[in-house]
Amino acid sequence: MKNKAITSKTEDFAQWYTDVIKAAKLADYTSVKGCIAILPNGYAIWERMQSILDKKFKELGHVNVQMPLLIPENLLNKESELVEGFAPEVAWVTYGGSKELDERLCVRPTSETLFCDFYASHVKSHRDLPMLYNQWCNVLRWEKETRPFLRSREFLWQEGHTIHASEEEAINETKRMMDVYRWFHHEILAIPSITGIKTEREKFAGAEFTLTNEALMYNGVALQAGTSHYFGQKFSKAYDVKFTNKDNKEEYVYQTSWGTTTRMIGGLIMVHSDDFGLVLPPRIAPKQVVIIPIGDSQRVVNLAKEYSDKLNESNIFSYIDDSEKSPGFKFAEAEVNGIPVRIEIGERDLENNNIVIVRRDTREKISVSMDSLNIVSYINELLEVIQKDMYNRALKRRDELTFEAYSLEDFERIINEHPGFIKGFWCGSEECELRLKEINGIKSRCILENEKCLDNKCAVCGRDAKHLVVWGIQY
Amino acid sequence: MKNKAITSKTEDFAQWYTDVIKAAKLADYTSVKGCIAILPNGYAIWERMQSILDKKFKELGHVNVQMPLLIPENLLNKESELVEGFAPEVAWVTYGGSKELDERLCVRPTSETLFCDFYASHVKSHRDLPMLYNQWCNVLRWEKETRPFLRSREFLWQEGHTIHASEEEAINETKRMMDVYRWFHHEILAIPSITGIKTEREKFAGAEFTLTNEALMYNGVALQAGTSHYFGQKFSKAYDVKFTNKDNKEEYVYQTSWGTTTRMIGGLIMVHSDDFGLVLPPRIAPKQVVIIPIGDSQRVVNLAKEYSDKLNESNIFSYIDDSEKSPGFKFAEAEVNGIPVRIEIGERDLENNNIVIVRRDTREKISVSMDSLNIVSYINELLEVIQKDMYNRALKRRDELTFEAYSLEDFERIINEHPGFIKGFWCGSEECELRLKEINGIKSRCILENEKCLDNKCAVCGRDAKHLVVWGIQY
Repeated sequence: MKNKAITSKTEDFAQWYTDVIKAAKLADYTSVKGCIAILPNGYAIWERMQSILDKKFKELGHVNVQMPLLIPENLLNKESELVEGFAPEVAWVTYGGSKELDERLCVRPTSETLFCDFYASHVKSHRDLPMLYNQWCNVLRWEKETRPFLRSREFLWQEGHTIHASEEEAINETKRMMDVYRWFHHEILAIPSITGIKTEREKFAGAEFTLTNEALMYNGVALQAGTSHYFGQKFSKAYDVKFTNKDNKEEYVYQTSWGTTTRMIGGLIMVHSDDFGLVLPPRIAPKQVVIIPIGDSQRVVNLAKEYSDKLNESNIFSYIDDSEKSPGFKFAEAEVNGIPVRIEIGERDLENNNIVIVRRDTREKISVSMDSLNIVSYINELLEVIQKDMYNRALKRRDELTFEAYSLEDFERIINEHPGFIKGFWCGSEECELRLKEINGIKSRCILENEKCLDNKCAVCGRDAKHLVVWGIQY
Repeated sequence: MKNKAITSKTEDFAQWYTDVIKAAKLADYTSVKGCIAILPNGYAIWERMQSILDKKFKELGHVNVQMPLLIPENLLNKESELVEGFAPEVAWVTYGGSKELDERLCVRPTSETLFCDFYASHVKSHRDLPMLYNQWCNVLRWEKETRPFLRSREFLWQEGHTIHASEEEAINETKRMMDVYRWFHHEILAIPSITGIKTEREKFAGAEFTLTNEALMYNGVALQAGTSHYFGQKFSKAYDVKFTNKDNKEEYVYQTSWGTTTRMIGGLIMVHSDDFGLVLPPRIAPKQVVIIPIGDSQRVVNLAKEYSDKLNESNIFSYIDDSEKSPGFKFAEAEVNGIPVRIEIGERDLENNNIVIVRRDTREKISVSMDSLNIVSYINELLEVIQKDMYNRALKRRDELTFEAYSLEDFERIINEHPGFIKGFWCGSEECELRLKEINGIKSRCILENEKCLDNKCAVCGRDAKHLVVWGIQY
């Protein structure tokens, strides 16, 4: 039976999305326009994301720091492209207490400026390099239209900022962090994203180039989820970040930055969830297994406890729902909250030597015989199967919604039938990008780097193609 | 040999403090007035603090959330005492992009208002209670004089905000969270703090009462490190946070909040460190053991690796310093960074079947025979001994600097000889508190709750005493 609090996904996707967020208690609106409260169920997902990514960053040699929230205006103004890109969307602090400030301070929209300012006074020699810093923090961008997780004025993220002694090393860093984001989406979030390079028009303000991780939502709209930028020496020249190289000569450092945000929670929902609520891939689920005892016979209670202990000892996050609610209510709650596996233990089943195991992703009920059942290995395998199945379903959906366009008419026809990833050759001109934008706001998602163009022509103007590009409409 | 970059503690305590922070690379000043950058060594300590406290909070049933950074002015203004207390020290956002805002927004100095606003729309019945929320975030207070970690315009903290169905339960929560802070200081930070209740004058703006955790720095100056507030129904009435109780009647919720901050890092330094740099209690040290191979003979390298593996497998944070620096340089670096235990492995010692182990706290060098040496249990025991010794030394120092005053003259004499905790009876009047403030800014730290006054008189006015109070000057 459908969850009545949730609009059907096929009926009204936008409403379905906000209904799932509300029903699964992930976030809520606040009295602060454009800013959400992330509730316990949502924040627990963010904590899982943080713990997995942070571990990976540290394995690769990164260390965490914390730079200030506020940026003095003159510091922000030093890199002209960055200012142009961000000035329309920053919030300004102009008063401290009752006193007007001599210089206004912006609430960080991103922290390249502060890291550069710091590096400028802390780097002397090539022996100080590389510096591989990351921070977990909040940032603010004064968006006009907002949507929980996907786009809000304040969001949480990690921003890595690294400096290097050579171009090659910095470019490798830019690439390897995109590999991390790709790995995280594919292996942990079960989201088959596409990675590539942004066009000049779509790259980060001030970057030499931007790599991007693009996910396709269930409705065919694209979501940029993780970017990695190579700055070359642009910022280091603007902020005077120099080092003495091995030849004892002064040189500007080579720089990168890369980030992922709470927006990934929105992506998770839009790729995997259904009309019954949240569906979480086991590897990111804060709670992987819920055990629901039916009735309170000692045998039932003991078995629930035994299973829960065994699973937790094997690092499978599980808990017993022994609250006073009815079993039916508990089933529905576990379902809407996206707990990947539900174990129902009831007296009647036990008499037949069975327990019932329910997969959240398929809602399949499995009656499992307890004869020689090893609960830990059974659940471990099931969680892996669910993870894999969820990835494959998302991949199938992505492939179904990936189209090819060879003309403007193709673009128009496709986008009017159904949004999706649209592969199309491109001559490289901004003119053709702008022409496509006129069609429902189609933008380039990314250039596929390893694709050859051969004799193909630009789908817009018919000139020789320079790149194969994935296009789409975006959140 | 003394670290030349560090001023002697006895010569100039304030300079010594900033020298240690700089030499141990914990934090640095930035171009943003009053705001510091927390560097990797400092942030790693904060991560340890977070992980230990967060685990404890969760064991007690708390969950993490994230409320917005910005508070609309009208929302802040609803609780008059809070506004009065915080208005002089908040930063105001007045522009979003190029547009002046209709209503200015303050950058949160604390989040009671936002939590109340949230709770008001999310609590209906006693079955929803208690709600035990916590958040880890940054806050801003527009301080005039700042000092790294101890007082800066922006700092990081956790703020717990809980609501309950009864006064008793909320008061118990207020107390148990102070017990957590006390436990954390005594057992983890090796800081023998004093806990008690704040006077009316010193309590949190808007609280019914405030419990406080007061630590004494090496120089005898007090540091408030952790407070827990009971609000009763003050905020719930101002923000209309009601629930239906078990008798089916509407009632306002009972509320608490409690917080600890990055200031604890400053406390750690000021209690334990010395003229050679940082000294960290093992239980909070992000790196507990450094292994320094002297020379590169295979035997030395292998043993270093073997020890490091064994220690890390037993959850003792250890690492090998196999960088290209000289052993002397490595010793000095480990020392200034406060690594609790240093293991030196050299070919010559190995010939005598010995290794050298150095305690950071006492700088004692111990030649340890490798005959039947179990490195894990040896280091485990040593770390526990160091933890205990550090606590006991801090306790001895605190006791030496704890005085008793029975008259204004006593207060004057004591504070002019040496600052410290000064125990003195008090009649309970604000007049007497203000009189003491005239003496070098002496303030009440806390009322000792379980002390009886018997026939004792107020040390200021001579009237009957109501409380035994710990007084002192503070950071």
